[in-house]
Amino acid sequence: MRILILGAAGMVGRKLTDRLVEEGQLNRQAITRMILHDVVEPVAPPAPFEVTALASDFSQPGEAERLVASRPDVIFHLAAIVSGEAEADLEKGYRINLDGTRFLFDAVRRVGDGYRPRLVFTSSIAVFGAPFPEAIGDEFFLTPLTSYGTQKAIGELLLADYTRRGFFDGVGIRLPTICVRPGKPNKAASGFFSSIIREPLNGQEAVLPVPEDVCHAHASPRSAVGFLVHAATIDTDEIGPRRNLTMPSVSVTVAEQIDALRRIAGDKVASRIRREPDPDIMRMVAGWPRRFDASRAESLGFRAEKSFDEIVRLHIEDELGGRIAG
Amino acid sequence: MRILILGAAGMVGRKLTDRLVEEGQLNRQAITRMILHDVVEPVAPPAPFEVTALASDFSQPGEAERLVASRPDVIFHLAAIVSGEAEADLEKGYRINLDGTRFLFDAVRRVGDGYRPRLVFTSSIAVFGAPFPEAIGDEFFLTPLTSYGTQKAIGELLLADYTRRGFFDGVGIRLPTICVRPGKPNKAASGFFSSIIREPLNGQEAVLPVPEDVCHAHASPRSAVGFLVHAATIDTDEIGPRRNLTMPSVSVTVAEQIDALRRIAGDKVASRIRREPDPDIMRMVAGWPRRFDASRAESLGFRAEKSFDEIVRLHIEDELGGRIAG
Repeated sequence: MRILILGAAGMVGRKLTDRLVEEGQLNRQAITRMILHDVVEPVAPPAPFEVTALASDFSQPGEAERLVASRPDVIFHLAAIVSGEAEADLEKGYRINLDGTRFLFDAVRRVGDGYRPRLVFTSSIAVFGAPFPEAIGDEFFLTPLTSYGTQKAIGELLLADYTRRGFFDGVGIRLPTICVRPGKPNKAASGFFSSIIREPLNGQEAVLPVPEDVCHAHASPRSAVGFLVHAATIDTDEIGPRRNLTMPSVSVTVAEQIDALRRIAGDKVASRIRREPDPDIMRMVAGWPRRFDASRAESLGFRAEKSFDEIVRLHIEDELGGRIAG
Repeated sequence: MRILILGAAGMVGRKLTDRLVEEGQLNRQAITRMILHDVVEPVAPPAPFEVTALASDFSQPGEAERLVASRPDVIFHLAAIVSGEAEADLEKGYRINLDGTRFLFDAVRRVGDGYRPRLVFTSSIAVFGAPFPEAIGDEFFLTPLTSYGTQKAIGELLLADYTRRGFFDGVGIRLPTICVRPGKPNKAASGFFSSIIREPLNGQEAVLPVPEDVCHAHASPRSAVGFLVHAATIDTDEIGPRRNLTMPSVSVTVAEQIDALRRIAGDKVASRIRREPDPDIMRMVAGWPRRFDASRAESLGFRAEKSFDEIVRLHIEDELGGRIAG
């Protein structure tokens, strides 16, 4: 079992790598080789099999061919320019998120000779744009309102067509907001959903830029890795031709997030959130999906948390070694 | 008012050209120049303004830039590899239908300097794939089951994103099957819907490759041109950010098509249809949409025929000078 991870240096890519190394197998087949790729060289962890870490721009001619030359059995395509940057730099976003994805798909196709890997593509709930129904179901149409969402929607279409034609066995998974993101605050407009939990637990103040009645859909980093592994091992005959799936998530208001934090870590921790409304972020958040009915993914065995309390507890367990700054 | 038509040598392109030359204006502005482009040189009709006919492959570097250099006010993008050929030749289909479209959009974007033309893009009901609801509404999701449909769906997404970003003022129109197509059959698998009307009216035998209970959505060539002109002149503020519209159509079974032919042209004409089931075409047709609820387009003033009888009569009037081969 040979595995290629594109975007391996990102948060989800690193956690996926760690899980695969720890388990040593995927779909009950021993992993014999892993190629980790990103635009900056990923850290290759110690492993009982060969791990190769590569850095390059996979939207450059020949790069995708090089990456698939060893005919990996499973390809995880997590590489992307994130939403804010894809909006700020149109050409870069289209070059990486559209061209890069297409070069990868074409490189797989051109191997030919019966090569047909499982290809897991991370799409995003950014493929949906307001106005929405109360809960976005599996048949809601794609109406992205960002270039990033447009590029992900195009990736989904290409994935379905190339799968239909038999070039690979693709599964596209639309990730909700991953919360609680470990590490430093990032510049994403959605970053506050994580920082209002992460910073108070670290004894630091967090800024909340939106009203507490804002509702949003979350899944933990552990669930994100679970989605990827499940997508890589599921019997795709069960999925059929509609290969892109909205992943399960927990929808809660910001008030409910803070309630969960207070229940688990106490009033003192929860008091470290400072309200500082930001009209720009409020306007962006107003156009984001709030709730999903992910029936298809659930019936196919994809699982997320059932409550935000669970998400907070997983963060404390996975990132803080069970300790909270009191 | 300068107008550029890409795909001008095709059936709809020629009819659009003829109508614009005849009317001499678009949106109450006198036409001063028309550029007709296709992969084979379009015929430039006599006109009271400059008409330039050009032949080139617009998916080649620099071609799209050349075409938009004169800053046309309205661009009709009708150029495409049709469904059968896009399925048979994957690379050609993606090169023309995806890359060509994107090169055109990027060429318009790069003109900059306040240039923001109206851009009318012909999409197709092939963006939809089975299974369907009884009638496909304006919010049904895109699930193409052909590479052609995938390429058109990608064009729609690009059109919406580039319009949102202000590079042009785009309107995408999803054409139903245009019937009755005049002239010789093209490579589209849907060709028989026209030939079972056209050939009998010409005194020739037509082959029907599917059962008579197959239901399909049609609009006349005259309506197709009407859709294009309306899309070029409509107040796009009324459309909002969801820029791709399913056009109105008449849904009838093949049996109802033949009944209409019989009512209008008699038993002898209708008897010129030979049943010769083709499993390949039957399988493709099984995945095609049957009926649409085109409420948005209708509320925006797009109009098609109300019955298939009307479609047959228009063909006899527009193409046969009112005469039927008895």
